[in-house]
Amino acid sequence: MKKKSRFLQTPVEPFQVEGGLTADAVLSRMERISFQGRNLATARRIWLKMLEDDVTIFLGMAGALSAGGLRLIVAHLIANRYVDCLVSTGANLYHDLHETRGQRHFIGSPLADDAALAEDRIDRVYDTYASEEEFITNDIWISDFAATLEHRPYTTREFLHQLGGHLWNTTKRDGILTAAYRAQVPIFCPAIADSSIGMGLSQARQKIPTAGHIDIIGDIVESANMIIRRPRTASVVLGGGTPKNFINQASVQAEFYSPDVSGHRYALQIVTDVPHFGGASGSSLEEAQSWGKLATDSARVSVQADATIALPLLASALATSAPAVLARRKVPVFTLASRDMTIDGQIVSRDRFEEMNESAV
Amino acid sequence: MKKKSRFLQTPVEPFQVEGGLTADAVLSRMERISFQGRNLATARRIWLKMLEDDVTIFLGMAGALSAGGLRLIVAHLIANRYVDCLVSTGANLYHDLHETRGQRHFIGSPLADDAALAEDRIDRVYDTYASEEEFITNDIWISDFAATLEHRPYTTREFLHQLGGHLWNTTKRDGILTAAYRAQVPIFCPAIADSSIGMGLSQARQKIPTAGHIDIIGDIVESANMIIRRPRTASVVLGGGTPKNFINQASVQAEFYSPDVSGHRYALQIVTDVPHFGGASGSSLEEAQSWGKLATDSARVSVQADATIALPLLASALATSAPAVLARRKVPVFTLASRDMTIDGQIVSRDRFEEMNESAV
Amino acid sequence: MKKKSRFLQTPVEPFQVEGGLTADAVLSRMERISFQGRNLATARRIWLKMLEDDVTIFLGMAGALSAGGLRLIVAHLIANRYVDCLVSTGANLYHDLHETRGQRHFIGSPLADDAALAEDRIDRVYDTYASEEEFITNDIWISDFAATLEHRPYTTREFLHQLGGHLWNTTKRDGILTAAYRAQVPIFCPAIADSSIGMGLSQARQKIPTAGHIDIIGDIVESANMIIRRPRTASVVLGGGTPKNFINQASVQAEFYSPDVSGHRYALQIVTDVPHFGGASGSSLEEAQSWGKLATDSARVSVQADATIALPLLASALATSAPAVLARRKVPVFTLASRDMTIDGQIVSRDRFEEMNESAV
Amino acid sequence: MKKKSRFLQTPVEPFQVEGGLTADAVLSRMERISFQGRNLATARRIWLKMLEDDVTIFLGMAGALSAGGLRLIVAHLIANRYVDCLVSTGANLYHDLHETRGQRHFIGSPLADDAALAEDRIDRVYDTYASEEEFITNDIWISDFAATLEHRPYTTREFLHQLGGHLWNTTKRDGILTAAYRAQVPIFCPAIADSSIGMGLSQARQKIPTAGHIDIIGDIVESANMIIRRPRTASVVLGGGTPKNFINQASVQAEFYSPDVSGHRYALQIVTDVPHFGGASGSSLEEAQSWGKLATDSARVSVQADATIALPLLASALATSAPAVLARRKVPVFTLASRDMTIDGQIVSRDRFEEMNESAV
Repeated sequence: MKKKSRFLQTPVEPFQVEGGLTADAVLSRMERISFQGRNLATARRIWLKMLEDDVTIFLGMAGALSAGGLRLIVAHLIANRYVDCLVSTGANLYHDLHETRGQRHFIGSPLADDAALAEDRIDRVYDTYASEEEFITNDIWISDFAATLEHRPYTTREFLHQLGGHLWNTTKRDGILTAAYRAQVPIFCPAIADSSIGMGLSQARQKIPTAGHIDIIGDIVESANMIIRRPRTASVVLGGGTPKNFINQASVQAEFYSPDVSGHRYALQIVTDVPHFGGASGSSLEEAQSWGKLATDSARVSVQADATIALPLLASALATSAPAVLARRKVPVFTLASRDMTIDGQIVSRDRFEEMNESAV
Repeated sequence: MKKKSRFLQTPVEPFQVEGGLTADAVLSRMERISFQGRNLATARRIWLKMLEDDVTIFLGMAGALSAGGLRLIVAHLIANRYVDCLVSTGANLYHDLHETRGQRHFIGSPLADDAALAEDRIDRVYDTYASEEEFITNDIWISDFAATLEHRPYTTREFLHQLGGHLWNTTKRDGILTAAYRAQVPIFCPAIADSSIGMGLSQARQKIPTAGHIDIIGDIVESANMIIRRPRTASVVLGGGTPKNFINQASVQAEFYSPDVSGHRYALQIVTDVPHFGGASGSSLEEAQSWGKLATDSARVSVQADATIALPLLASALATSAPAVLARRKVPVFTLASRDMTIDGQIVSRDRFEEMNESAV
Repeated sequence: MKKKSRFLQTPVEPFQVEGGLTADAVLSRMERISFQGRNLATARRIWLKMLEDDVTIFLGMAGALSAGGLRLIVAHLIANRYVDCLVSTGANLYHDLHETRGQRHFIGSPLADDAALAEDRIDRVYDTYASEEEFITNDIWISDFAATLEHRPYTTREFLHQLGGHLWNTTKRDGILTAAYRAQVPIFCPAIADSSIGMGLSQARQKIPTAGHIDIIGDIVESANMIIRRPRTASVVLGGGTPKNFINQASVQAEFYSPDVSGHRYALQIVTDVPHFGGASGSSLEEAQSWGKLATDSARVSVQADATIALPLLASALATSAPAVLARRKVPVFTLASRDMTIDGQIVSRDRFEEMNESAV
Repeated sequence: MKKKSRFLQTPVEPFQVEGGLTADAVLSRMERISFQGRNLATARRIWLKMLEDDVTIFLGMAGALSAGGLRLIVAHLIANRYVDCLVSTGANLYHDLHETRGQRHFIGSPLADDAALAEDRIDRVYDTYASEEEFITNDIWISDFAATLEHRPYTTREFLHQLGGHLWNTTKRDGILTAAYRAQVPIFCPAIADSSIGMGLSQARQKIPTAGHIDIIGDIVESANMIIRRPRTASVVLGGGTPKNFINQASVQAEFYSPDVSGHRYALQIVTDVPHFGGASGSSLEEAQSWGKLATDSARVSVQADATIALPLLASALATSAPAVLARRKVPVFTLASRDMTIDGQIVSRDRFEEMNESAV
């Protein structure tokens, strides 16, 4: 009898339907099917591995996930330290703040009459609506708060921690910003100028000309120093955008100053963009290796799926299977209240990169 | 205080993570989030409505779902009469037959060296492999069986029922073809000539020149007559392709001969194609109304997702919430063994359309 | 100085804008840019290579290209023998016939009110409209013609040649079917049952019960025999679907019977589907090598683009640069009027595969 | 005879192939076809309308367009004032600087072995390569330059103008940065922190702790003030991302302070993202109306295409048909060398929004 090909090792195991299966069991059965289903099941396995290893886990978040109903999942991931640092678009933090302040997004239709919406001052995000007037109250709330800060540039990390604290103190409600504040998890927002949070900051200058200053370059230094201080890292990316690149850039920048850094050890992305148009959002994790963004022996998986399907399933599954691992997880400890953050007791400078030479290591 | 806009009625309800949630509970919590997550949750609700109503449910199936590990889900949907009639590509039925005959598909990599695979005669479907030699044994098995049939054209519906019976008698294993055979559920395969089942049929002629004749036009007549006989229908489509259009065409053709037919009452599609390039696979359910494929007051939802993620979750959820509805469901009863099928005791001709004039109705 | 990496050979040459550039010059300048622009430029180069080589060129056509305004490009490609054999969906041939019969498609909007369209009996294809009443006259025209044919099964190749002839004799207008008739270029339509042409054929049975018989399995035999008779082939695919697979299947089936056949030598596809969901429409040309659909040393390129952008540009460019090559091109010569077609004077059987054993070759 | 439906007004006009057609003629013939081809032809027509009207035209640029060979097209659009203000990702400006400094990107393969590339320190962007060592020289060049600037925060607009000037003085080569410098066209880069230009700025602090300060919030104020000063605007977007939103945000922010502002009058986007996942990159221009980003009576078109195909064709066409319109175009006149820019002789503050009350208008 002919010898079997080396390529034919592990059979596909058709998914068996059963009543009462948990999300965790569903994903577990999807490990041996194909295409994006298998990839999503692999994402669960890789995330569990990250949690078992001693790595700093970055979470990147782009797309309208907060408006779309995923903000409490992200808050849950932060509060339970599935992740250690959030990098987000401004919109996701703004829509989170909108709801934490007690306002809502609303179920809408993608086929709506936008002229009629405009007349009612309703803003549409695909199939979701929000009140422009309520948005304006947010802008004012943010600019009022920004006007109370010291008259010096803040990194987005420092500003967002302060903002989260103010939000928690005002509302005592759960959300991304408040969860990160309470769990002492840093948030970076590299494109804050391209968001309503940035708009709120800009409006603070109308009151106090020296207000609303952000040290966006300081964020680059801080994020790289975090990795120089703790070189083993992992990346979880939802939706591409600036967060995906910023997380990778931090590792590349850190590697420039420290020989200990050599790319993320784990990478998991849930994206809808594709690689073949050349954009960073859809770029493959293989390509990331060429840049040194990922270690060439990293565990990695890319899932082509809308996060509004993939994340509820994945987070529900992890909530069943991860608690034991989380309980014994060794997390980085941050202090975030001052101008300079610390990680595991060490200062993380915003002003200059820590230079680790070979001998120091 | 300003009156609230009529557009702001139902708030988005952020998804709350919890350990131990069933697939059904996950989808239930996704009903009030946004984007494709909400659509998938709506799909569950619409499918339940179909099952409660008195409609013939068509299932369309395109893409490499059988090779990709979803064939036992489809078999489960047939066996438990979530659906009443399957329209499939030939490949899905062929890959089902491959596994029912005891062979396997295998876990592979999309980054494989295809020249090396070709040398080993391994066929790749994205991240899944199969043995070409085993495929050839299937072709021979099909052509041997086709050579035993009467020397006259068979509709794909008749041929596939006979093939399913032969497969069941030979293997006693579960699969799509065998489940449909045992549940007396008809299968149509309008593009059978574009598949390895068609290739097997063509090879039968090498043995017996008058073998391997398929009456593909008879399938059009039969499928329309099914709807003329039982005008209330629903459509569940996985992946677009010829099955999607064939199910719609059957309704349009039936309407031509019977005033009782007026488009599907329910429509649910899980597709990855998009509308804006004009192709039928990605076409919207709204567009389908213009053609009369869907009733203008139909309940409908389109989910943009890979079926390998969406279907395991959806089918697992339904397995929890649907059994009671299924138990009292009034299904159409078919006989499929003869040249002419019957539905609820009435002949479904392959030779001419039943003409229902107004008075007869 | 450090030696340059072997990977850095050919610089990207930024596109230089200039007034008055021809389509051909534009594509020529796109050869050294990146992403899908480069791929489209490569497509022009590969098509020119096909025309210079002695290969049978198959053109596959899926998506609503005829309704979308590309039918005269396809007719031009056929009439000038850029291609030697067309494999099409039924819809593209039907919409071609619609216009050749003197009717039109109309500019519409993707945001149309489909209920209003349905009331006016206007069928929508994304942003394009057509009159359902005119469509019904086509169906009748086709069924009237089908009823005049001999009472025996026709391959789609034979039927479509006859239909093209009848259309030419009736209208004397250019189109895909008439161009193929006049240029003696065969057309296959493997999914004819999933189209309005199939519906027209089915309606012929209402007049004459023995009419409207299609020998779809004969198409498989014929298409493979074409390749057995002339083993060097090339594939140009627009939009995936059944035509893409049918063209590949013909080669795989031919290889089964002849050692001379070893996959297409050239392959060019313009698709909007992507590989990562596992469907055949979006499958990569690399994957096709594992199946033997393509020779492992084939010249090939996949362009991710809407054909309504890519094809006008590509065909306009070729109309400038290809005429000299076309003039000296050695094309296969077909006769198509009888039950059995011929290629270069040899019978192409629909009933059994030509078996070429090693010694015969 | 039945009256024709009001929906059937303008027939689709099939594209007629002809040798020697210019890009302009090709796009002109595409106006009456369907799908994305029609949309691209409409983009040409709308851009011409913008040029004829008295509007400030913003160009947004995301995706790897500079690395991909489109930087000289963008430089051409700036130099010839097809556009008046550029909003870009940092990567596009960085890759532009890379080439203007005399270095190159290289033709590569998407199927490359990324571990081998990593070993050679070659960075891959889909099918395009660049040398990491050369990139490092850019970083140093940028940080050296940044260290020479005044020790105060610069808006990206001011910094990039200075950078462009330095680049022009050093190289005398054409590119995006140098063309914008010479044409006195402002460039904003809201996500500069998420790019290698940001990395270069951060490295400047290693030399001079007070260097590398960017006033990203000042960019928000400046961009809105530009629109307050000149309220009629248009938006051309390539690839979505932060530039798309920033251009829209500027209009929304301006409207907050001036009743004269009411959304862009014209909008044209060439994107590959889709609306149905909720992300801003793929969001529809209809949705933008609900936000007031676009005037509800704006002329607008969205083209779903890779810019590497669409832009060479579109820019080549415009280079043929636009010169006369460009010659009589009334452009906004900027001065950009100082801390405060001017538009048409008026100061554009970075510190506070110009407030236009009703009476002042």
